[in-house]
Amino acid sequence: MTDHPLDQALALRPRDADGVLAGATHPAYWNMVGPFGGTTAAVMLQAVLQHPQLLGAPISMTVNYAAAIVEGSFEVEAVPVRTNRSTQHWTLRMVQADSTGELQVCTLGTVVTALRRTTWGATDLAMPAVPPPDQVARLGIGPSRVAWVEQYEMRPVHGSIPTAWNGEGDHSETIMWVRDAQPRALDFASLAALSDVFYPRVWLRRAKPVPIGTVSITTYFHVDAQELAAVGTGHLLGRATGQQFANGFFDQAAQLWSEAGKLLATSNQLVYYKE
Amino acid sequence: MTDHPLDQALALRPRDADGVLAGATHPAYWNMVGPFGGTTAAVMLQAVLQHPQLLGAPISMTVNYAAAIVEGSFEVEAVPVRTNRSTQHWTLRMVQADSTGELQVCTLGTVVTALRRTTWGATDLAMPAVPPPDQVARLGIGPSRVAWVEQYEMRPVHGSIPTAWNGEGDHSETIMWVRDAQPRALDFASLAALSDVFYPRVWLRRAKPVPIGTVSITTYFHVDAQELAAVGTGHLLGRATGQQFANGFFDQAAQLWSEAGKLLATSNQLVYYKE
Repeated sequence: MTDHPLDQALALRPRDADGVLAGATHPAYWNMVGPFGGTTAAVMLQAVLQHPQLLGAPISMTVNYAAAIVEGSFEVEAVPVRTNRSTQHWTLRMVQADSTGELQVCTLGTVVTALRRTTWGATDLAMPAVPPPDQVARLGIGPSRVAWVEQYEMRPVHGSIPTAWNGEGDHSETIMWVRDAQPRALDFASLAALSDVFYPRVWLRRAKPVPIGTVSITTYFHVDAQELAAVGTGHLLGRATGQQFANGFFDQAAQLWSEAGKLLATSNQLVYYKE
Repeated sequence: MTDHPLDQALALRPRDADGVLAGATHPAYWNMVGPFGGTTAAVMLQAVLQHPQLLGAPISMTVNYAAAIVEGSFEVEAVPVRTNRSTQHWTLRMVQADSTGELQVCTLGTVVTALRRTTWGATDLAMPAVPPPDQVARLGIGPSRVAWVEQYEMRPVHGSIPTAWNGEGDHSETIMWVRDAQPRALDFASLAALSDVFYPRVWLRRAKPVPIGTVSITTYFHVDAQELAAVGTGHLLGRATGQQFANGFFDQAAQLWSEAGKLLATSNQLVYYKE
């Protein structure tokens, strides 16, 4: 473990011989009323990544935020339910003790890992043409309303945070360069977290900061560990758009490319909103 | 239960007092080497829909195809792991007996159901402008290579099945009108199945029918039961596009609109491919 805040947040130690891991929320990734959901997804994935029976690398992950996570310790269990020749199917759950000490499920998930083989490839989702990161201003550095935002260097090209919360938004697309604020070589856990780095599309679409909460996020990983390592501490180009906003829930689609233009991950999430 | 083949395929009867349900694959929805994945997803969802503790209606579903399903009986278990005031989080698994009679997990999943409230809404994914269904030719009626295709009326506007499998495809987008071939009022189970109705994008992109298999599908439902019922037996407009094709796995994004232009569901899947 390094002293990088993400490595601290991802730290999991065996709690017993049953493969249950113990961890704790980290103040550096605190959101308004709980941890940043991206960090929670990364912690869930980390339980798979450090499992002794792991086959291959993640290709798909779904995390369902079942209940609020409170500050403090939690347990994560990753179970390899089915292992095939080249794919492995996992179920995940995170639990926390309630006020009576009883363990309650707060997060559920599934992961698929796989051994990849070299095949034909192509992309039908090209990286948008944008100025390079050093020509795009960094979003406000310094104390923000929530801690986790300070852990990321964000350079919005399009669709930054509204300057006027006047209820007159007219689109839901953000394009930005992004990476860990304190440099850290990209890996699957940090890519999982970055897939959730876009602020809720409903805020941009309405220019109105209504109460929200992610219900479920699904991320597909399109690269192997070696390709991720090649990205190193470089910027990623992220794009997120809202799709359908209807009666309390909306979905947003996101993509993350390396600076070299390779599509690393595609992600979708369903988000609760009020009003 | 009606005599509609989908209702027959969805038929689940309590196996015991523990909430485990028993069903069987249906020949009308057979694919090349197993059941159509859309029907399997619909069966998984059906186990939630007929659960006595169900809260609200589905808003999100992920189904992971962990192993091949063989012809014959299976069991499905849907567990409401966490019930909140307005959302409910489910885990799902489908098992089949192997040749020794031991139960093996073949399908895993999670579902979130919710009570919706009336809120502000908007769409940032408008229905493509296309001719009405009665002006678009229906895709070949009659015996096809796989049974399930005959259960759907498909009217492709764009990106139909390649006429020449010459390895010279150049895009991965299909737009088509679609509905059950034998009329059946739309519900959540049939919408879940329709979300998987698009043939694998890699076949279109390459104009080459390589071996494939869906690994995971995630569908978001943007309407309630009443809005679905209003669609009735009308056509849906479906659109699917490939995104990233890399080293054995690609993802495809899909949308389904009602003929009136309402976005009913958005869906993403990750698919294995060979070569």
